[in-house]
Amino acid sequence: MIDIIALRRELHQYPELGFTEFRTATKVVQMLTALGYRVTYGKDAIDDSFRRGLPKPEVLEDAYQRALQEGAEPTIVEQMRGGFTAVVAELDGIQEGPTKAFRFDMDALPIRESGQDKHVPQSGQFRSTHEGIMHACAHDGHTSIGLALAERLSDRQFAGKVRLLFQPAEEGVRGAYAMVEKGMLDQVDRLFCMHLGTDVPSGHVKGASAGFLATTKLEAHFTGVSSHAGASPEEGRNALLGAATAMLNIHALPRFSTADTRINVGILEGGTGANIIAEHARMVIETRSTKEETNLELERRVRQILEHSAAMHELSVTVETVGGAIPIRCDMELAELAVKKAEGISGIRHAEAISDGAALGSEDASYMIKRVQEQGGLATYMIVGSDLPAPHHHPEFDIDEAVLAPAVEWLERLARSV
Amino acid sequence: MIDIIALRRELHQYPELGFTEFRTATKVVQMLTALGYRVTYGKDAIDDSFRRGLPKPEVLEDAYQRALQEGAEPTIVEQMRGGFTAVVAELDGIQEGPTKAFRFDMDALPIRESGQDKHVPQSGQFRSTHEGIMHACAHDGHTSIGLALAERLSDRQFAGKVRLLFQPAEEGVRGAYAMVEKGMLDQVDRLFCMHLGTDVPSGHVKGASAGFLATTKLEAHFTGVSSHAGASPEEGRNALLGAATAMLNIHALPRFSTADTRINVGILEGGTGANIIAEHARMVIETRSTKEETNLELERRVRQILEHSAAMHELSVTVETVGGAIPIRCDMELAELAVKKAEGISGIRHAEAISDGAALGSEDASYMIKRVQEQGGLATYMIVGSDLPAPHHHPEFDIDEAVLAPAVEWLERLARSV
Amino acid sequence: MIDIIALRRELHQYPELGFTEFRTATKVVQMLTALGYRVTYGKDAIDDSFRRGLPKPEVLEDAYQRALQEGAEPTIVEQMRGGFTAVVAELDGIQEGPTKAFRFDMDALPIRESGQDKHVPQSGQFRSTHEGIMHACAHDGHTSIGLALAERLSDRQFAGKVRLLFQPAEEGVRGAYAMVEKGMLDQVDRLFCMHLGTDVPSGHVKGASAGFLATTKLEAHFTGVSSHAGASPEEGRNALLGAATAMLNIHALPRFSTADTRINVGILEGGTGANIIAEHARMVIETRSTKEETNLELERRVRQILEHSAAMHELSVTVETVGGAIPIRCDMELAELAVKKAEGISGIRHAEAISDGAALGSEDASYMIKRVQEQGGLATYMIVGSDLPAPHHHPEFDIDEAVLAPAVEWLERLARSV
Amino acid sequence: MIDIIALRRELHQYPELGFTEFRTATKVVQMLTALGYRVTYGKDAIDDSFRRGLPKPEVLEDAYQRALQEGAEPTIVEQMRGGFTAVVAELDGIQEGPTKAFRFDMDALPIRESGQDKHVPQSGQFRSTHEGIMHACAHDGHTSIGLALAERLSDRQFAGKVRLLFQPAEEGVRGAYAMVEKGMLDQVDRLFCMHLGTDVPSGHVKGASAGFLATTKLEAHFTGVSSHAGASPEEGRNALLGAATAMLNIHALPRFSTADTRINVGILEGGTGANIIAEHARMVIETRSTKEETNLELERRVRQILEHSAAMHELSVTVETVGGAIPIRCDMELAELAVKKAEGISGIRHAEAISDGAALGSEDASYMIKRVQEQGGLATYMIVGSDLPAPHHHPEFDIDEAVLAPAVEWLERLARSV
Repeated sequence: MIDIIALRRELHQYPELGFTEFRTATKVVQMLTALGYRVTYGKDAIDDSFRRGLPKPEVLEDAYQRALQEGAEPTIVEQMRGGFTAVVAELDGIQEGPTKAFRFDMDALPIRESGQDKHVPQSGQFRSTHEGIMHACAHDGHTSIGLALAERLSDRQFAGKVRLLFQPAEEGVRGAYAMVEKGMLDQVDRLFCMHLGTDVPSGHVKGASAGFLATTKLEAHFTGVSSHAGASPEEGRNALLGAATAMLNIHALPRFSTADTRINVGILEGGTGANIIAEHARMVIETRSTKEETNLELERRVRQILEHSAAMHELSVTVETVGGAIPIRCDMELAELAVKKAEGISGIRHAEAISDGAALGSEDASYMIKRVQEQGGLATYMIVGSDLPAPHHHPEFDIDEAVLAPAVEWLERLARSV
Repeated sequence: MIDIIALRRELHQYPELGFTEFRTATKVVQMLTALGYRVTYGKDAIDDSFRRGLPKPEVLEDAYQRALQEGAEPTIVEQMRGGFTAVVAELDGIQEGPTKAFRFDMDALPIRESGQDKHVPQSGQFRSTHEGIMHACAHDGHTSIGLALAERLSDRQFAGKVRLLFQPAEEGVRGAYAMVEKGMLDQVDRLFCMHLGTDVPSGHVKGASAGFLATTKLEAHFTGVSSHAGASPEEGRNALLGAATAMLNIHALPRFSTADTRINVGILEGGTGANIIAEHARMVIETRSTKEETNLELERRVRQILEHSAAMHELSVTVETVGGAIPIRCDMELAELAVKKAEGISGIRHAEAISDGAALGSEDASYMIKRVQEQGGLATYMIVGSDLPAPHHHPEFDIDEAVLAPAVEWLERLARSV
Repeated sequence: MIDIIALRRELHQYPELGFTEFRTATKVVQMLTALGYRVTYGKDAIDDSFRRGLPKPEVLEDAYQRALQEGAEPTIVEQMRGGFTAVVAELDGIQEGPTKAFRFDMDALPIRESGQDKHVPQSGQFRSTHEGIMHACAHDGHTSIGLALAERLSDRQFAGKVRLLFQPAEEGVRGAYAMVEKGMLDQVDRLFCMHLGTDVPSGHVKGASAGFLATTKLEAHFTGVSSHAGASPEEGRNALLGAATAMLNIHALPRFSTADTRINVGILEGGTGANIIAEHARMVIETRSTKEETNLELERRVRQILEHSAAMHELSVTVETVGGAIPIRCDMELAELAVKKAEGISGIRHAEAISDGAALGSEDASYMIKRVQEQGGLATYMIVGSDLPAPHHHPEFDIDEAVLAPAVEWLERLARSV
Repeated sequence: MIDIIALRRELHQYPELGFTEFRTATKVVQMLTALGYRVTYGKDAIDDSFRRGLPKPEVLEDAYQRALQEGAEPTIVEQMRGGFTAVVAELDGIQEGPTKAFRFDMDALPIRESGQDKHVPQSGQFRSTHEGIMHACAHDGHTSIGLALAERLSDRQFAGKVRLLFQPAEEGVRGAYAMVEKGMLDQVDRLFCMHLGTDVPSGHVKGASAGFLATTKLEAHFTGVSSHAGASPEEGRNALLGAATAMLNIHALPRFSTADTRINVGILEGGTGANIIAEHARMVIETRSTKEETNLELERRVRQILEHSAAMHELSVTVETVGGAIPIRCDMELAELAVKKAEGISGIRHAEAISDGAALGSEDASYMIKRVQEQGGLATYMIVGSDLPAPHHHPEFDIDEAVLAPAVEWLERLARSV
């Protein structure tokens, strides 16, 4: 039987960034296959053209080679080469019934993990071996819970089907949409998504969550013409002038009376030297709103500003969506079922239907939830509380491993429910 | 015989702004007609659609009514109603020969004339009676010289034809182009333009001038959508954001290695109240260059910035050319003729072919000169020096009336030359 | 006895803008004095240095002369010359008791009143005789109610004192603060403010209101150095570059997670001609927030942007507060008293304690309410509903005169309450 | 005897960027010492605090280690550790006389050298072995000429002294000023600087050059406060807003009527992620002018814009001068001497006193020239023409090695002249 704490610690040592979860996903495929699941992965589990914010080819290849060196099974990982690191597994229960899906995310963050002795992964000798990359958002725990759940359910003692979704690239809200577009959420009757932590203490769980914002992440590239700033300035087309104009005007977009909004140009960079008119500039932009349609309107206006800031200076500009999420509306019927099923689990002291709407940022499970709901299914986003020594995305973040086993049991009960 | 000083003083008392020279031009028509010239004026002398920077209809009408009240001959001025204040007169000499044209400008400036005793028009009791308008650039002198010249030449003792062009709206470089487009400069063999003053002392004349810049004056109107800044900011389309963006980016256009350039947004105004998203904004812009093609390139880029600053914020924008001029290249053959003819005139101590290129700003006689040269004729822009108590366009500007008579004689000699 | 409809119509014909309510305020002084009130006005009722957004001296003087010509009592209006148009009247009841204050605003708007027959003031022949000025926000009704209330209470059959505050310049939230600073709200136990209309139908009243925003209105003047844009651009210090930079950066100030905010640069204007570097620019700016402290923080940041946008281009800048308001928190104890007292009044069908928070914009009665509450008194802002043919501030705005008499009775009951 | 072509080819294979010329400078020290010169280098030859645009410590150290690995003599290069790569050598002639100084620059450019067969260093097997670094501005030739000259003069058959200056970091105009500040140009009677190429054909030389511009290179760092763009945008202080504002306003600085000017923000970069308010931004800026004082005025205004763009958004900013040069005024007396001395040299067909002022960009030898002239000496900047297959700073740039020997002879004659 899986030692969930050992498994989580093993995963913790090999964190992989979004779309490079080659080692992790290969291990997931191997374990699920061994347990008797029908496993879909690689290009069969995620749509190439809808992956957002894909790393550069050389980054993907380096990570692939690293996974090979670290022992990833070659014939499996070969199918994931180029960033196709989604895994979907399905198992039929012994009798007819609804399809219940569970979603787990697998990716880590570009954070250098703390080496202080008080940091448990350091003192416990399972700190990240990939310097500069860290599981600082509990996805190692999520993946472990998913695999332990798979083991429990391999007895097939449930009605209907169970579908386990292991998603790449949740950070930056990049991976879920392409799995949805590949059809991985079709024919799902109940979808359970979950997260560890999020300011909920150990022993507490929530059947649903509120407060997720719609968001779009855009990357824009301005291209002009370089020229010598002294000898022939008039021959240049200055990409930085276009980018600076876009910077100011994007931030100057109006507040909305219809919803809360946010706009940020988080990165702006361009130019090569003092005496060269800058040929190229790159911007990374984020919009958010409490309403999906307001976020779409903001995105539309940002794109318009980018287009005309470029045209104003005779630059070309490309704009790519590198991430996105929509608000989440949980089905309270499912949330209440979850609360009911939490009763009596050792390690869960308190369960309630919904958290109070404190903003949790954005989550691209939102696309999965929307797809299931559009097709008549129910969905919810649950929280398994965990005491935390430091906030999410912090070098000293760590989870309370005592909450892992209760979480598996909770999900197991939901999987076996009719 | 015309008393040129009295005539100049009379004109000085009734200064009229560009395209509203109703009283002045009517007087010119009357005098030239009386002298036997074939006189063309009103819509026959200037092309409606090429007049630039035309005042608003109510301004034109008010000035028209003022001229009527001041005694302008009704049947003549009626032909000028709406701003058609150009006059062209022609007379045939007694024998065949070339057509010699002379250009005089008639308009005044929106400057309140000095009321100090040391200011000669004040002490001499011929200060402007049109409060806030003033002949502060010697065009009263130019018109007087033109009329005195007409009288001298009415004896027809010259070969070929003489054509006298009385131009409206030189200030703002607005009127000449529309006379050229009406054909008023066609079939001219020699064109003599002239200006009084310009830092050349009394008794000195120049046969040609250098240093005029190409220029374009544009007026842009941005139109957006107003909305309440508190209740529904997202419904507004802010014309001032578009205008401010254009302001900064127009000034940020590159310097040119190929020619000296200038750019200025001289007026920016819009909005109606603190709590209203501004629906409208107006900008007045000027480009200049030592080269015509560089000025055209700058104008093209300014227009592009205006267009996209508007589109960026979903505004519409209109851009109108309200003035313009090109550099002047004088024919030195004509300049040398002028120098030669200045010899021996009482009141002219010194004549030279060309001034040294000190920038004289811009002049729309440049379009007339270009048209004549394109058709194979010769043209020059001459200076009749005048000691000045204050610079051009200053409330205390005044000319040295002693230079008027020598100027007439100089032009007469050129008109009678073969 | 006062015919309140006739009085309102009379006031409607002579609308006066903020701080120029010379005729209106003089009439108010005369009527209150005749009724036996102790009347304070002119510089005794409003603090000179805290008046915000005062019109220019010549505008104040023109309006003063107009009031004289329209029959304003010279010895009274003389005390108001220069814009001191506040009036405060007090009367002692026949026995001891609390001081109850009532606030009415008197100013009109710069709107041209409709001349259509369907517009009742037109067909009823009491349209504005001050072309371009209109009572389009019901302050004529407010003032009439105040005067009718004064007449009712002149019998002194109440306990304590009644204080009636007639405020200038509510539009633009400019006048109340200076009355507060003059001490006009000191020693008030209960303050009743009221407004007609505001989307509440005739026959309905509210004991309190919510949704008012804190706001600050600023006027900035940039001063640089003009120079000829062609001849010596480097000698200029371009006020429009500073203003355009401020425009963009003020709009780019961040959204706040702590409160809803608004920012608007509503007016930007500067420059005199195409070829002159602009010496001067003016901006009018507004900030708003649901929280007073957030609005103050926004104002602080706006001022900082103005200061450094100027300094960046070696301009000087002055920034003046020309209006302001804070959020209103009504005392529900008073609101409930008001609801109770509305019972049984003919013409009032429905009374409730508070409106539902629909944003009503901003109100400078907020400063009066705050001062009373700071000193231990109670205050509320009540609504007297009125069917409206067109929204507030619209050329066809008009009130339902049938609600005036019930409003007077309501306030009378509150004045006589113990 | 030195084989100048072999020497140049050897240097060409080991190009080193500014202030990292460890291998090159060590070799120079060794050769000059062997020839009997008094050699000053390391901290004795260049002032620490005036070095501009110094690379980061780790870059300096990496280059130092590379030089060691490539065989640089450890005890010499140790003195240069940290970027002290200037070398000055002096030799006394056999009799009294003036001090004649010759300046050679040693650094290369961050350009990847062409690997095409038609590129002579490729086919001749002396292409750069430091991938991404290239001698693309002939400094390998300059250094070789300097060493060959040193060998010729080691016979001491001249009057006075010879001083040879080997300068680091001419690219970016960074190194000369700190040598001047160290006193390396003191007591020089005649200074000869020279450059190969510059559009002058092989066989032609110039005794002096015109057209160098004053320039300043600045690097600015804005520091604000990062915060989460969704959760707490109001806590951030956005460094990119400050930088974008500076970008636009720096480019919007006025043209000057007094001199030709250039301004460029060549690099702008900041921010770390879409959802983080950018804490840091970096800008690299260049000003140029035909006049030193105009360039200083531009620099002053750029610094002012940087300061206030930062303060506007509550950012701090540091601004460092990372390069600079002033215009060069050659002493024609020396230029004419040079022309005279070029007569009869094999390989020099044509010599003239001065090139025609075509802009050559900027040169920090200008500081050396100024210092010499300030102390009463004479100085000039000479050109040794070379046919070029591609422009300076191009991956296919190469010099005509046939011009090296004549150049040495020319300088030798000047060194031996009285």
